[in-house]
Amino acid sequence: MNTRKRDIAMPDAALMDKLVSLAKRRGYVFQSSEIYGGLGSVWDYGPLGVELKRNLKDRWWRSMVHERSDIEGIDAAILMHPKVWEASGHLAGFTDPLVDCKVCKNRFRADDGRIKGEPGTPDAKCPVCGNTGTLTAPRMFNLMFKTFMGPVEEAAAVVYLRPETAQGIYVNYLNVMQASRQKIPFGIAQIGKAFRNEITPGNFIFRTREFEQMEMQFFVKPEEDERWFEEWKEARMVWHRSLGIDPARLRFHEHGADELAHYAKTAFDIEYQFPFGWQEFEGIHNRTDFDLSRHQESSGKKLEQIDTVTKERFIPYIIETSLGADRLALVVLADAYREEEVAGEQRVVLALAPAIAPIKAGVFPLVKKDGMPEFAHRVCDDLRRLFPVFYDDGGSIGRRYRRQDEAGTPFGITVDGQTMDDQTVTVRDRDTLAQERVPADRLVSYLAERLGS
Amino acid sequence: MNTRKRDIAMPDAALMDKLVSLAKRRGYVFQSSEIYGGLGSVWDYGPLGVELKRNLKDRWWRSMVHERSDIEGIDAAILMHPKVWEASGHLAGFTDPLVDCKVCKNRFRADDGRIKGEPGTPDAKCPVCGNTGTLTAPRMFNLMFKTFMGPVEEAAAVVYLRPETAQGIYVNYLNVMQASRQKIPFGIAQIGKAFRNEITPGNFIFRTREFEQMEMQFFVKPEEDERWFEEWKEARMVWHRSLGIDPARLRFHEHGADELAHYAKTAFDIEYQFPFGWQEFEGIHNRTDFDLSRHQESSGKKLEQIDTVTKERFIPYIIETSLGADRLALVVLADAYREEEVAGEQRVVLALAPAIAPIKAGVFPLVKKDGMPEFAHRVCDDLRRLFPVFYDDGGSIGRRYRRQDEAGTPFGITVDGQTMDDQTVTVRDRDTLAQERVPADRLVSYLAERLGS
Repeated sequence: MNTRKRDIAMPDAALMDKLVSLAKRRGYVFQSSEIYGGLGSVWDYGPLGVELKRNLKDRWWRSMVHERSDIEGIDAAILMHPKVWEASGHLAGFTDPLVDCKVCKNRFRADDGRIKGEPGTPDAKCPVCGNTGTLTAPRMFNLMFKTFMGPVEEAAAVVYLRPETAQGIYVNYLNVMQASRQKIPFGIAQIGKAFRNEITPGNFIFRTREFEQMEMQFFVKPEEDERWFEEWKEARMVWHRSLGIDPARLRFHEHGADELAHYAKTAFDIEYQFPFGWQEFEGIHNRTDFDLSRHQESSGKKLEQIDTVTKERFIPYIIETSLGADRLALVVLADAYREEEVAGEQRVVLALAPAIAPIKAGVFPLVKKDGMPEFAHRVCDDLRRLFPVFYDDGGSIGRRYRRQDEAGTPFGITVDGQTMDDQTVTVRDRDTLAQERVPADRLVSYLAERLGS
Repeated sequence: MNTRKRDIAMPDAALMDKLVSLAKRRGYVFQSSEIYGGLGSVWDYGPLGVELKRNLKDRWWRSMVHERSDIEGIDAAILMHPKVWEASGHLAGFTDPLVDCKVCKNRFRADDGRIKGEPGTPDAKCPVCGNTGTLTAPRMFNLMFKTFMGPVEEAAAVVYLRPETAQGIYVNYLNVMQASRQKIPFGIAQIGKAFRNEITPGNFIFRTREFEQMEMQFFVKPEEDERWFEEWKEARMVWHRSLGIDPARLRFHEHGADELAHYAKTAFDIEYQFPFGWQEFEGIHNRTDFDLSRHQESSGKKLEQIDTVTKERFIPYIIETSLGADRLALVVLADAYREEEVAGEQRVVLALAPAIAPIKAGVFPLVKKDGMPEFAHRVCDDLRRLFPVFYDDGGSIGRRYRRQDEAGTPFGITVDGQTMDDQTVTVRDRDTLAQERVPADRLVSYLAERLGS
């Protein structure tokens, strides 16, 4: 078997096209409103995509909330009081500098690498129409989506779609502490949608205007911030490796002084080597007491804690782990993609870790007669009570294996002539291609063990 | 034990206040942006609320998607192409008639029961300022939230927050069929947020502007619509009863000709007797071929199927089951609420079915010494690997039981003096108050059995 894994050192431009195409073909990701020509950089998750994301989110939730006694979950609304964004600094500072071409009316980020010369000066050249001196000086545009609550579009009713889930945690932190009897240090975890009106979205589900975040905010004493930062930084990398992601494609990137967000004292990205290069998909940030101080000042509500030993008041520091659910889905898809030659034939396979694969087993009657479909249906129904399975009787067995290889299904179960004699089935391993005969009545425990569940 | 259940015949106005208060106290639901005075009719789910909703949503997903071979899941984006809403009829028809008072500037739904007289005529009386003849004639306002994609607020970039998740299913249905190899009849299920700019939201989490839907759209041959409608109508009622909801508080309501939505041939609501009266929380609708026909016409893409027997082309009919996740959460909370007298003391208890209760067991050391806390922590850690548990050593054991009663926790496990001698603990049943001694090393299997898992 000749496995063609991507060269670690070289990004593969064509791979993205292949991934997008496979994602549509197998039902991972569809272009949103495709029958209407699509909506720019918005994507819908199909039957396999929704299960992959569910598996990733459930795994994160279990590790953050269910398996720990010091983290609580919440689910705050997307719509929040506009003062939240005033206090957090997003209203004033969550902006990108934009440049217009006065001739062709195209709009660019001021830092767009295609622009030659300084925008606003006579020698700047528009990267689309090619005219010089037609680009305006940069102007700041806020990235928050704005909408209107109540029936009239009047200034009093302006609300924003949250650009990060974190603020929903901050404004609820005292309520959570009181209800759950937690004490510092403790954390609050949340999974939810956020929206950013990006000027240049792209790279499939990597940068989209609507996206899902998995954020955890850990509240600590100010003097313990660095210890907790280190702990979470390491813990997050360990978690990603537990998904089976190639460690050689994972790295930390520390933010330099010029990269730090307005709220951050220290920030490390966890980057993955995507086909389009190294990019961040999770950030670990020491947000200090910035957010809670601002909310205390702005709301007039005391958001302090009292040190049980010194009896002094303090505003907790916050260590944030902020993971993009869609980016993580792209990481595991890109990491799992393989093109291989098997017995003289090409195959495409998604070598997803069995724990996160959407379908755990395909079930195939070798032919559509001699009782095989009935037997295969019974096998399927038995397994379905425990994990997602897929019945397929369409086309040659080779074609059916290939479809499930592309879907990332770790096991293929075939009901054949021998099954009718001795009630055993073959179980094919997606990665090694090894086939093993297993008694049908032992399939559940056999698969449960191999799936590690 | 003197159980005070609500009188079936009489709505209980005070009960809503009690529920809202308990929901905050125990961490089910908080007012959004509370430190800023709240945002009108927007609510955040706290640690217990998020688990309750997860349990309800997971149960629905399992029954719809995982346990059936004829339904696929998807997760479409909230932002869709604006043409979707033109075709679906929402842009033109998803409106409420509103009336303004020219004097006090208040705004009302034209059908507001407090308005005396015909709005727009000299004898109509404003229900707030009391002036007559000051109400305008009704004008139509669209209930969709509008926002702007891209950096400028120009007409071309107007998009809407979806007012229902259903359309995300319709525009993807061919892609789903192709990827999943489904054939008519089959269904597509989805859980996701939707937004409606309601003029009169209210009743806690019953009618909110941001809400979560659990919708399933079942695609059938036109001539089989009535059979499938009946099947789904009955199946949905059975599912709600499986959550332990009082059957006497559940009923069907058939839409009369004047109530039917523009797309519906037949519609049945499933209603619950809330403290504020009988109200719908799920709808089963025969949407006919309305939506797919409109999308076919509007997009120019063929959305037909071919009958395998007659070879004739047809556009599938759609049977929709549309359940509000927040309304369902309110149903189970209201249904579970009890005030009781126990041994001369009042207690409030949420008698949630164990399968949907956020915390499965509270673990309490009787006193904070003699090794009891250490033993209780070990018990807690063992159980936490399997289900959510809560450790509490604060206050008298009676107070701790009461807190978990209010939280809806079905079992209370106490580590006491005898535990130190014989390694048994007491398990208290939330509903019967019966206490049983169970060996600590048998707790996992004992609870798993009683939780039915």
